[in-house]
Amino acid sequence: MEPLSSLEELTQALRCLPSVGPKAAQRMALHLLQHDREGAQRLALALDAATRTVRHCQRCNTFTEDELCALCRSTKRDATLLCVVETPADLMMVEHTQAYAGLYFVLMGRLSPLDGIGPKEIRLDRLLSERSMERSARSCWRPISPTRARQPRITSPSCLPRATSEVTRLARGVPVGGELEYVDSGTLAQALRERRVLTS
Amino acid sequence: MEPLSSLEELTQALRCLPSVGPKAAQRMALHLLQHDREGAQRLALALDAATRTVRHCQRCNTFTEDELCALCRSTKRDATLLCVVETPADLMMVEHTQAYAGLYFVLMGRLSPLDGIGPKEIRLDRLLSERSMERSARSCWRPISPTRARQPRITSPSCLPRATSEVTRLARGVPVGGELEYVDSGTLAQALRERRVLTS
Repeated sequence: MEPLSSLEELTQALRCLPSVGPKAAQRMALHLLQHDREGAQRLALALDAATRTVRHCQRCNTFTEDELCALCRSTKRDATLLCVVETPADLMMVEHTQAYAGLYFVLMGRLSPLDGIGPKEIRLDRLLSERSMERSARSCWRPISPTRARQPRITSPSCLPRATSEVTRLARGVPVGGELEYVDSGTLAQALRERRVLTS
Repeated sequence: MEPLSSLEELTQALRCLPSVGPKAAQRMALHLLQHDREGAQRLALALDAATRTVRHCQRCNTFTEDELCALCRSTKRDATLLCVVETPADLMMVEHTQAYAGLYFVLMGRLSPLDGIGPKEIRLDRLLSERSMERSARSCWRPISPTRARQPRITSPSCLPRATSEVTRLARGVPVGGELEYVDSGTLAQALRERRVLTS
């Protein structure tokens, strides 16, 4: 078999992007070569840099280039509040509302035993780790998207730090079936303010 | 202003891809970092290689890594036939039908004076160049997608090589409003066989 040309290699490589099929990949490759080689070079450098430097925050599990992320390092955040989110995108959305000043824990996914995604895969161990237990979390809540799950995935308070005195979840305002990252900041801010107590 | 993090750089760089907005770019960046760093590295290398090596074929204007593309170098193609297409994607689609054995010319776009895309931008000069005039093209046709243009963009035979004895266009079979690259091979093969004479 003939070796792939650079164009074919690029088309195949673009398939690593989510929701990009063979047609879209070809379209992207041709677009970059015809109209934006500078952008393509910049993307190559950014991909290389990010894959080499970005890792998980030792405390909250989100993406960072340091041992601890900027939020965990900050002294201005309320360490008695913990917000558990699914993804760094959700964290960014909540930050964008400017309605929350506590800390986060990023699960990096959803429990889905049928898909082989258990507590280990979403790093629940870190959430439950000694460090988390020591934190005098006064309130712990998680705005996990009500996407496919009708019931919250983690309902038992036993899987949350024992020091936690209150577990809340997002109030009405977040539409069922929508991804959290697509909710507008205003709605999300409202939902943050009106979150309800699950256990106390 | 704080310098951008590697993740933010990557998210911004991904915006160079067509139809990728801020949300999609963020989603892609997070997906790559969380699930496919190997793919991201491969993509970085492919982007770098393609932008450095891919250029235009001196004869047909399509993408190639050499002076002439494989089709123009081939001795098995019928040099008396010329097929004028808009993009390399269209060329690939026509090749995929295996119903055409002539040569190509790739316009790399569509005439669109309102958008500032004139004959120069779509390299009509190359099509009309001495080399093209010398070619004893017996038949010249162009399956340009009938997308936005109800009438073919180039209707005057004067802008085609003088030696050309016959100009044809694609027969029925290609749906109006559809992009050529999304037409299935069977329909396109049929349309190729039944293409009609425009001038003779």
